[in-house]
Amino acid sequence: MNRPNRQILLAERPDGPLELHHFREVTTEIGEPGPGQVMCRIVLLSIDPANRAWMQGRTYRDQLSGGEVMAGFTLGEVIAGDLPSGTVVACEAGWQEYAVLSTAAVRPVTVRGELSHYLGALGVNGLTAYFGLLEVGQPRPGETVVVSGAAGATGHLVGQIAHLAGCRVVGIAGSADKTRLLTDQLGFEAAVNHRGPSLRQDLRAACPQGVDVYFDNVGGPVLEATLSLMNERGRVVCCGAVSQYDTSNPAPGPRGVPGYLVTKSLRMEGFIVTDFHDLWPLAERRLAAWLANGNLVALQDIIEGLHNAPAALIGLLKGDNVGKRIVRVGADPR
Amino acid sequence: MNRPNRQILLAERPDGPLELHHFREVTTEIGEPGPGQVMCRIVLLSIDPANRAWMQGRTYRDQLSGGEVMAGFTLGEVIAGDLPSGTVVACEAGWQEYAVLSTAAVRPVTVRGELSHYLGALGVNGLTAYFGLLEVGQPRPGETVVVSGAAGATGHLVGQIAHLAGCRVVGIAGSADKTRLLTDQLGFEAAVNHRGPSLRQDLRAACPQGVDVYFDNVGGPVLEATLSLMNERGRVVCCGAVSQYDTSNPAPGPRGVPGYLVTKSLRMEGFIVTDFHDLWPLAERRLAAWLANGNLVALQDIIEGLHNAPAALIGLLKGDNVGKRIVRVGADPR
Repeated sequence: MNRPNRQILLAERPDGPLELHHFREVTTEIGEPGPGQVMCRIVLLSIDPANRAWMQGRTYRDQLSGGEVMAGFTLGEVIAGDLPSGTVVACEAGWQEYAVLSTAAVRPVTVRGELSHYLGALGVNGLTAYFGLLEVGQPRPGETVVVSGAAGATGHLVGQIAHLAGCRVVGIAGSADKTRLLTDQLGFEAAVNHRGPSLRQDLRAACPQGVDVYFDNVGGPVLEATLSLMNERGRVVCCGAVSQYDTSNPAPGPRGVPGYLVTKSLRMEGFIVTDFHDLWPLAERRLAAWLANGNLVALQDIIEGLHNAPAALIGLLKGDNVGKRIVRVGADPR
Repeated sequence: MNRPNRQILLAERPDGPLELHHFREVTTEIGEPGPGQVMCRIVLLSIDPANRAWMQGRTYRDQLSGGEVMAGFTLGEVIAGDLPSGTVVACEAGWQEYAVLSTAAVRPVTVRGELSHYLGALGVNGLTAYFGLLEVGQPRPGETVVVSGAAGATGHLVGQIAHLAGCRVVGIAGSADKTRLLTDQLGFEAAVNHRGPSLRQDLRAACPQGVDVYFDNVGGPVLEATLSLMNERGRVVCCGAVSQYDTSNPAPGPRGVPGYLVTKSLRMEGFIVTDFHDLWPLAERRLAAWLANGNLVALQDIIEGLHNAPAALIGLLKGDNVGKRIVRVGADPR
């Protein structure tokens, strides 16, 4: 039995800022799963800055091409095939209502609490924050941790985990509403609006002891400003560079590289969450415990309807979201 | 008894490329050492790219000012004061014939073999190559190590130590004579002239397996080109950025930072040799053994006479030297 399947394609790769016309909605038919496959009904779709980076060129995955179903991380419910119906799985089904996937490519999830957290605080963002900060950044109690994109899906978790690690936390975000949220609701010791007129001075004032760990989600001028404030033996955790994604011409790198790295013995290190795959179960247990006991507040920004995914991503790249942005594609399975 | 002392001052900080008129020779008088001091007769003066960086701004030391005796690492012989006369010491006496220094600021050297090596292969350059490559770069046997400034005081040692660590070694240097020297005399598997018309392609051809460790002495376009060839989990050892020293307007950082760091999980780390102070005795023993048994060839470029120090530094910044450049200030003590 074939089934109609609404999909959103990347119609063409953007050559400049991403716009709605770069996407196209189509309805195709999807067949039954074969041996070693499952059919999933997609429930939630993760909207991530990386979605845009995948259009720019080869990253840790092949570059996206025009005509493909837009790629993205999802949570779905198995409705046919090699796994029991009703199994909730994390998968990379992309922007569509249904997907037939290799059973090896889906990961069953034991859901406790709200399903959407398994795309955010208990999913890629939580793991990225956990490993990037604790394993790559190696913060010590009493150190100053600065995080950019601090009101974003990963950043707001980084700051809270840094608190758990005994650090003083300064967030950088793109609006006064966001900086207020960070200090008033999440307990950040200070927060700086990078769209203000005096980023470097504001950041210096917010970090009287300098910066020991900088968790960088944005790159560009914010990275350049923070580099100048790093303490000796400081660590810059390179997680993303969202300031450089929505363009075909990324800017040169920050001034101070490699100058500051040499003169202050800095370490600047990139990572991908899969680098720490062996340690995921431990991190997942810890994140779940922190979420359950209130040590970790997971902010979410859930948008209804697959057809809103293009606007959701375009808005994310402009900084419209607070916390984890998710598109609800289908009804919750429970 | 006072003693005439020829000195070379930094007359004024350069605002552009360093030239002879930025220096001034004077003769002053130097008095006897007081308690806790020694008087040294300077024998050898190390000429280093860092000398120029010290004029640009604050690094790991205060910025140099016009009117000061030009700073530099030296080897001298104690002739009066708290240590026995004839003691050979490593010190930072600067560009002069004699210096009265705190006894705590000089380091006695037990000389075996040629004294000048204690400024190069058995001194700061050897230790910098050893710790930068082995501790920061963490090379594994079979990996490809690229070193820039490869015919320079530190670079030619880095390549040879990388061989001892079982790596394939590619050098980047600034002339065809230098690249020939690297492959023909020092056994580098390949060498690339960064002043040639096709740096990126030449480097790609020289590194068919990509680059695992890049030991960067130069920064600038060479760093940018090498970054694009790094393998996943590669390490960039930031030792210096000589391409950016002889100017008041260092260029922006390389494209690909932080992009490549994120997508390839790269680590980029700066260091100063004093970061590893506790491990110096071990490294010194190993370097001395390698030099003695011929595993390490230490190239030297010795220029006679303190008055030639300004030209020696200016030439070094243009890449005139091969191996360790040293100015002989006085006769060997033995």
